[in-house]
Amino acid sequence: MPTKNGHSGPAFSDRVIRGDLLAANCPSREILRHVTSRWGVLVLMVLGTGTHRFSELRRRIGGVSERMLAQTLQWLEADGMIERHARDVVPPHVEYSLTPLGREASAHVTALADWIEAALPAIETTRQDRPAAKVAAGRG
Amino acid sequence: MPTKNGHSGPAFSDRVIRGDLLAANCPSREILRHVTSRWGVLVLMVLGTGTHRFSELRRRIGGVSERMLAQTLQWLEADGMIERHARDVVPPHVEYSLTPLGREASAHVTALADWIEAALPAIETTRQDRPAAKVAAGRG
Repeated sequence: MPTKNGHSGPAFSDRVIRGDLLAANCPSREILRHVTSRWGVLVLMVLGTGTHRFSELRRRIGGVSERMLAQTLQWLEADGMIERHARDVVPPHVEYSLTPLGREASAHVTALADWIEAALPAIETTRQDRPAAKVAAGRG
Repeated sequence: MPTKNGHSGPAFSDRVIRGDLLAANCPSREILRHVTSRWGVLVLMVLGTGTHRFSELRRRIGGVSERMLAQTLQWLEADGMIERHARDVVPPHVEYSLTPLGREASAHVTALADWIEAALPAIETTRQDRPAAKVAAGRG
């Protein structure tokens, strides 16, 4: 089901029934990019376990920089997947939690992530059995 | 469940029980990157509907370049997700299909993609209701 138009606008949601990820100009492509971004999957996964502070997210997700975590949270907030709460306490801090949309996204990426973690040994075995895959890909 | 070691090697699959995507040095991170790469999701989605030639994949996936499609197929082949068959016909051509591992990966990314396509109108509505999300993210 193709979108009627790749451009967003005031009446956009009234005109589009469903996105089409195979269409180059469909705005669903941008959502996919945010949700499956390097840190987007991991942020959604961790927030699926409950509300977290920025500093807690940073500690849980190995290797993420402050800048990239902030950028990822901003994308997902703009897409309506997460909510940001500034807590007026001492010291002040910011908490993040999933919206109902975000909980749905989180369930999907967590299922994918679980599968990858469980499949890793099988994938590593396959990789060892196919040392020539890269070379073979050049043939024909 | 942490991996015991981030380095791949001959005995790797015997030592690792399960990957840990939250660990910066876990090799599952690379698999996640391939599967959720810009074109990886769409390639797995399309191959989930059956075997395709390179040229068919390129036509189905709007906006993908020959170089990026070839690179994505090579990653997924090396990870044991897809199989490449060179057909010795006139004119010769190459076909791609999913392996059993790839079918599992495809089922997960297709579920995510279906959800994004269906959720697009709701996400677009949220985006219109939150024009200040970017500004708000700068506060506190």
